[in-house]
Amino acid sequence: MSQSNEQQWKLLLLDALLKERREQAQQAIEEVYPYDLAKLYVELEPVEQERLLRYLDHERLADVIEELELEQQLEVLRRLDVEHAGHVMDLMENDDLVDILEELQEEEVDRLLSGMRQDEALVVRNLLTYPVETAGRLMTNRFIWVPEDFTVGETVEKMRDYIEYSETINYVYVVNQLSELVGVISYRNLILANNAERIGDVMDRKVIRVSAETDQEDVAKMFERYDLVSLPVVEGDVLVGLITVDDALDVLREEANEDIEKLAASGKSIDFETKPLIAATRRLPWLILLLFIGLVSGSIISQFEETLSKVVALAFFMPMIAGMTGNTGTQSLAVVVRGLITREVDKKVVTRLILREFRVGLIIGVTCGILIAIIAYVWQGNPILGLVVGSSLIITLIFGTLAGTIIPLILHRLKIDPAIASGPLITTLNDILSLLVYFGIATAFINHLM
Amino acid sequence: MSQSNEQQWKLLLLDALLKERREQAQQAIEEVYPYDLAKLYVELEPVEQERLLRYLDHERLADVIEELELEQQLEVLRRLDVEHAGHVMDLMENDDLVDILEELQEEEVDRLLSGMRQDEALVVRNLLTYPVETAGRLMTNRFIWVPEDFTVGETVEKMRDYIEYSETINYVYVVNQLSELVGVISYRNLILANNAERIGDVMDRKVIRVSAETDQEDVAKMFERYDLVSLPVVEGDVLVGLITVDDALDVLREEANEDIEKLAASGKSIDFETKPLIAATRRLPWLILLLFIGLVSGSIISQFEETLSKVVALAFFMPMIAGMTGNTGTQSLAVVVRGLITREVDKKVVTRLILREFRVGLIIGVTCGILIAIIAYVWQGNPILGLVVGSSLIITLIFGTLAGTIIPLILHRLKIDPAIASGPLITTLNDILSLLVYFGIATAFINHLM
Repeated sequence: MSQSNEQQWKLLLLDALLKERREQAQQAIEEVYPYDLAKLYVELEPVEQERLLRYLDHERLADVIEELELEQQLEVLRRLDVEHAGHVMDLMENDDLVDILEELQEEEVDRLLSGMRQDEALVVRNLLTYPVETAGRLMTNRFIWVPEDFTVGETVEKMRDYIEYSETINYVYVVNQLSELVGVISYRNLILANNAERIGDVMDRKVIRVSAETDQEDVAKMFERYDLVSLPVVEGDVLVGLITVDDALDVLREEANEDIEKLAASGKSIDFETKPLIAATRRLPWLILLLFIGLVSGSIISQFEETLSKVVALAFFMPMIAGMTGNTGTQSLAVVVRGLITREVDKKVVTRLILREFRVGLIIGVTCGILIAIIAYVWQGNPILGLVVGSSLIITLIFGTLAGTIIPLILHRLKIDPAIASGPLITTLNDILSLLVYFGIATAFINHLM
Repeated sequence: MSQSNEQQWKLLLLDALLKERREQAQQAIEEVYPYDLAKLYVELEPVEQERLLRYLDHERLADVIEELELEQQLEVLRRLDVEHAGHVMDLMENDDLVDILEELQEEEVDRLLSGMRQDEALVVRNLLTYPVETAGRLMTNRFIWVPEDFTVGETVEKMRDYIEYSETINYVYVVNQLSELVGVISYRNLILANNAERIGDVMDRKVIRVSAETDQEDVAKMFERYDLVSLPVVEGDVLVGLITVDDALDVLREEANEDIEKLAASGKSIDFETKPLIAATRRLPWLILLLFIGLVSGSIISQFEETLSKVVALAFFMPMIAGMTGNTGTQSLAVVVRGLITREVDKKVVTRLILREFRVGLIIGVTCGILIAIIAYVWQGNPILGLVVGSSLIITLIFGTLAGTIIPLILHRLKIDPAIASGPLITTLNDILSLLVYFGIATAFINHLM
C-alpha cells in the first residue's frame, strides 16, 4: 500500500468514527499505521476519541499508545478500566510502559499493574529499578533466546511459538546453562542452516553487548559505530534484556535536543505544546541568574564612570566588543559540545584543541581588531580611539575563544552537568571579561583619548 | 566474545604489526570489529598502516574504510593500486562510496571506477546523479528482491545465492513484472512459511516507501516514526534501492550537528581535527557580518550621545538589557529550531506558538522588569531611572522573545536556509532593538532623570 492509499483509509476511518460505523472503522484501522492512528487520535473530538479507543483491539491500541506523547498516553490509560488497561499494557513494549509509569504516584502504578499478567507486571517492576537514562531502562524482554544445545530445528520451533510475542528483530540469542550470553544467530543464517545442527555450532560467538547500567548516550553510540539493529543487555554475563535500534534513534534525538537546550539555556523540555506559564517558569531561573551577572557588567562600567564621562564615544563600541566576544565564545562552545558527543577526550586531545582554538582566536582577533581600528579611526577621527578599540578586540576575542573552549572542558572533566556551560552563560561571562579589558585599556590611554 | 577479549586481540594485532607477523595479524583481525580496526589504523605509524592494509583481505578492508573519516578514506584508496582499490570498492556500500567519490575530480573518479566491476561502477555512477542529502544518495543496491510469483522455496534459494552480497537486513522485497514494489516479507515470516507457497500470497502488501528525491531529514523521520530497520526507495512505483537504519542514524547525527551549528553560527563542519586557519576562515565571515551589525548598535548609541552624556548611569544597564534581550531571543529560537525538526507546522501551529511566546515574553518581561526596577532604584537612588530601566526591559524582553520566534519561522516559510537565523544573529539584532527602546524611553524621561 502506498502513502496515498493510506490517506484514503484515514479519511474512511474518520468518516466511520463520525457516523459510528464500527465495522468500517475496524477495516480502515487495519490499513493505517499506528503512528498515523496516534496523530489522528489527538486531533479528534473527545466523543470520537472514545469511539476509536473502543474500536481498537488490545494489540492495536498498545501500538497506538506507544506513538502518543507522554501526557496523552497517561490520559488514554486512565480512560480505560483497570482490566482493559492491563490487557493493553501486557502488549506494550516494557521500556515504553516504564517511561509512562515513572510519571505516576506509587498507588496509581500499583493499580495499573494489578490489571496486568503477573509475570509481565513483575518484569515491569524490575525495569523500574534501573536508573533513568541507562541501558536497563531501554531494554525489552520481548526477544527470543535459546540454550546453546538446542538444534536449529528446535530454535525455529521456539520462534514459531513466540512470534507474536517478540519484537520484530532479527536475531536469536544463545545462552549457556548459567543464562550467560554466549552467542547469536541471525534469522538469515537460521534459514540457511541445517535443521539438525546444534545452535552452539552455527552461532556467532562474537556478540557486542552492554551492561545494564551503561549510559543511554553510550548505548546510542554503539548502535552507530557497529551498525547494529539490536544490542543485548547483560548483568555480569547474564543476558537480561535487549535494546532495539528504534530506541537508539529516540535517544539520539533526545540527546541532540539536550545539547541544543544547553547551548540556548532554553530550559528542559519546552516544546510547541508547553503552556506559557510553565515555559516561562522553566526559563526564568536562568534569566534571573543572567540578569544578576549582567549587572556585574553594569557595576564594571560604573567603576569606569569617569573614563566614560570623559569620552562618551567609548560607549559606542561597547555593544560591538561585548557581542563579538560572546559570539566567538559560543562558536567555540558549539565545537566542544559537538565534539564531546562523538568522541572520548584524553589529555592529548584537550591540549591540541586548546592550542588550536588559541590560534583560531588569534587569527580572528587580529583580523577583526585591525578592521575595527580602521573603522573607529575613520568614524570618530581619533587614531588613539582606533588603537584602543582594535587592541581590546584582539585581546577579548582570544580570551573569548579560550573561555568558550576551556569552561565546558573543565565542567566535563569535573563531571558537572555541562548544561551549566550554556551559550548565554558563556556570552554573559565574556561580556564581563570584554568590558574589563576594554575600559582597562581605555583608562590607561585616557589622556591621549580626550 | 566480550569487549575485554577484543581489547586483548587488539593488543595482539598491534604486536603482530610491529613485528611484521602476517599470520598472527590476520588471526587477530578476524576478532576485531571494523570500527575498532579503523580507530587503530589512524593511530598507527605510516609503516604499520601499510602493513595493516596489506594484511586485510578485500572484504575486511572495505568494512574498515567505511568506518574511517572522509579524508582518511581518500588517503587509503589512493594508497592502493587501481585494481586493488577496485576490488575493495566493489565490496563497499555504494552509498558510502558515493560520498567519497563526490569529493574528487572527474578524472580521479574515472580512474577509480575503472578498477571496479562494470555493473558495480554503473550503479555507483547512477547514484552520483541524485542530489546530495536525498534518499537517492543514501540507498544501496545490496538487498534481495524477488518477483511475486516466486515460491517461498525459490526465495530462500535466491537468498542463499546472494547472502554474501546483501547487507545484513532482514526483509525480502517483492516486485511485479513492471519492477514495481508490491510487497515485503520478513526473514522471520519466510522461516515460518511453507516452501511451496507463492510469495505473492504470503507477503505483506503494506510497504512504507520513499521516493528517491525525498530529503534525507524526512527519511530519518520515517525511520523514527515507523520504527523501521530498512526503507525501500522508489521512482514512480519502481523499486530502485534500499536505505538501512544505520544511514538514518548517521543522518540524525548530521542534522543535529547542523542545528547546533545554526544556533552557534560556528561554521559548518569544524571539528577537533580542523586546522586553525581553516576553522578561522569558516568562522570569520559570520563574525565580520556581526561586527558590522554590532556597529549599528554603536551608531544608535551615538545618536543618543546627548542623553548618555547627561546621565552616564544609563550606560551601567546597557549590557544587562542588551544581554537579556539576546538571551530570551536565543531561548525562543532553540524551541522553534527543535520544533521544526520534529513536526510539520501549519498556520494553526504557528499562530498558537507565536501567541504562546508572546505570553511567555510578557511573564518573563514583567518579572525581570519589576526586579530590575527595584535594583536600579536601590543602587542609583533614582526612582525614575528604575522606572526607565524596568519598563525598557519589559518591552525588550517581549520583543526579543517574539523576534526569536518569528524570524526563524519566516525564514522557514520562505524556504531560506534557516542557518541565517543563527543564535548570534538573533542576539545581535536583539541588541539593536533593545538599545533603541532603552534610549528612546530614557530620552523621553531625560528631564526627570537628571
